[in-house]
Amino acid sequence: MKKKPHFDCVALIGIGLINSSLARVIRRDSLAEKIIGCSRSDATLEKAKKLNLCHSYTTDVSFAVEGADLIVLGVPVGANKQLAKIMGPALKQGAIVTDVGSVKRCVIEDVKPHLPESVHLIPAHPVAGTEHSGPEAGFEGLFENRWCILTPEETADPDAVEAVKNLWLQAGMQVDSMDAYYHDQILAITSHLPHLIAYNIVGTAYDLEVVNESEVIKYAAGGFRDFTRIAASDPVMWRDVFLNNREAVLEMLGRFSEDLSVLQRAIRWGDGDTLEELFSKTRDIRKGIIQAKQV
Amino acid sequence: MKKKPHFDCVALIGIGLINSSLARVIRRDSLAEKIIGCSRSDATLEKAKKLNLCHSYTTDVSFAVEGADLIVLGVPVGANKQLAKIMGPALKQGAIVTDVGSVKRCVIEDVKPHLPESVHLIPAHPVAGTEHSGPEAGFEGLFENRWCILTPEETADPDAVEAVKNLWLQAGMQVDSMDAYYHDQILAITSHLPHLIAYNIVGTAYDLEVVNESEVIKYAAGGFRDFTRIAASDPVMWRDVFLNNREAVLEMLGRFSEDLSVLQRAIRWGDGDTLEELFSKTRDIRKGIIQAKQV
Repeated sequence: MKKKPHFDCVALIGIGLINSSLARVIRRDSLAEKIIGCSRSDATLEKAKKLNLCHSYTTDVSFAVEGADLIVLGVPVGANKQLAKIMGPALKQGAIVTDVGSVKRCVIEDVKPHLPESVHLIPAHPVAGTEHSGPEAGFEGLFENRWCILTPEETADPDAVEAVKNLWLQAGMQVDSMDAYYHDQILAITSHLPHLIAYNIVGTAYDLEVVNESEVIKYAAGGFRDFTRIAASDPVMWRDVFLNNREAVLEMLGRFSEDLSVLQRAIRWGDGDTLEELFSKTRDIRKGIIQAKQV
Repeated sequence: MKKKPHFDCVALIGIGLINSSLARVIRRDSLAEKIIGCSRSDATLEKAKKLNLCHSYTTDVSFAVEGADLIVLGVPVGANKQLAKIMGPALKQGAIVTDVGSVKRCVIEDVKPHLPESVHLIPAHPVAGTEHSGPEAGFEGLFENRWCILTPEETADPDAVEAVKNLWLQAGMQVDSMDAYYHDQILAITSHLPHLIAYNIVGTAYDLEVVNESEVIKYAAGGFRDFTRIAASDPVMWRDVFLNNREAVLEMLGRFSEDLSVLQRAIRWGDGDTLEELFSKTRDIRKGIIQAKQV
């Protein structure tokens, strides 16, 4: 039951890939009377202005949020705590604070304590993205057919949850709701570990002295280029993801390394059966992804 | 100086992604009077027939090569030795034997000893591909703007090298020539290790008991899906790559694991600077790939 949401004033804190794409959706579908764009960087505000993404622009967080009924935090997750401290006292009664971060437990821990009683915190994670950053990187279709995960606490206000849910449905997403802890486990394997591995292999290639960099680049079509795309993602955003989902990432990384040792041993000892068996079963998951239209 | 090559009869041994794409190019540009398709599988020959890829079809390798002036081995590299033994006595004087495998030293070791003196072995590796296999997966444009690496021995006949080079130029590739050992080192980092890592992480996700498979699939858009694409590549072909480029892959894997330990430690101890530094420098390689039009 999709219902077009409507807000008087939406404050976008941070205007990167996700929030700038969201701004485009809000304008396209007239989901708010007013959009305020807030960034600590004047250059980012200038870019957003040129793109006509918002109705007004400011570097002042308190000023941005004071009249807003929806606040969307779209900054590296490590910045949320400081932001919450600043904006807490300025928030309107009954306002909804949501976010778009890739880790969810830390949002509750960092933001919740600084919000007034009457303000609703509804953490959200639109699982969509590209390797590009900044206001120019956004586009309306970014969210189409992807999943958004909400992680409201059990005590969260149902109307506030519904409002955030409707926003992402309107953006073209399917919406799920789950516990923040479980979200962080799933994303550790489907997103955080893949990024870590991609950054790592590109780093390994960068440091090689036996093969020079221009050759790595020239022959990247054999698989490497896909990793370089992922490893071109925003460095500060990803630094914060790893620092804020430490236990889950280390757990998945431990399993990955264990499994990799088995492959290493199979290669060393010429055990083709072990290799072929693994390489065959991984095709099943790909088929599932194609069937689920998440390609 | 691109010169359109011409052959009387080309024998394609194996009609998978690469050889079936090559067949399309040869037909499109009339590069041969006759193309013979050879596969040990009747089903594959049937598919190739339906697609009208060749002029004749056979499961008999000796029969396929006996009149051919160019023989292209397009099978998993582990199968080359046995093939060479069978076809050796049937080869025409002065024929050129080439291949399309992802490992090159083993081709020289496995094939050369079984060829008559008068036959030229010119190993080649068109660095292009998709995760799909079989005759239906091929298409004319597969090679466009990619690199092909030739690894002829120093004593190789220049005219034979030129013929193979012209074939790949005609297919739209840029062509490089280098030592087979060096090729195997480069490809270990740009192709073999990325595939190993992708297979491994998809396997790790497959085995997880804390997160179920349908959720891994649903939320794959956060990075995981790119790995599943690579991990859907042909299992037997890749098994043979790892078994036949063992030393180079183990060397690169050792470096990768070392580097990964540094990241693991940085995450455990909350060392954001180390993470951010790596995540920033990997962007350079991506820029290089974009500039080199290898995206």
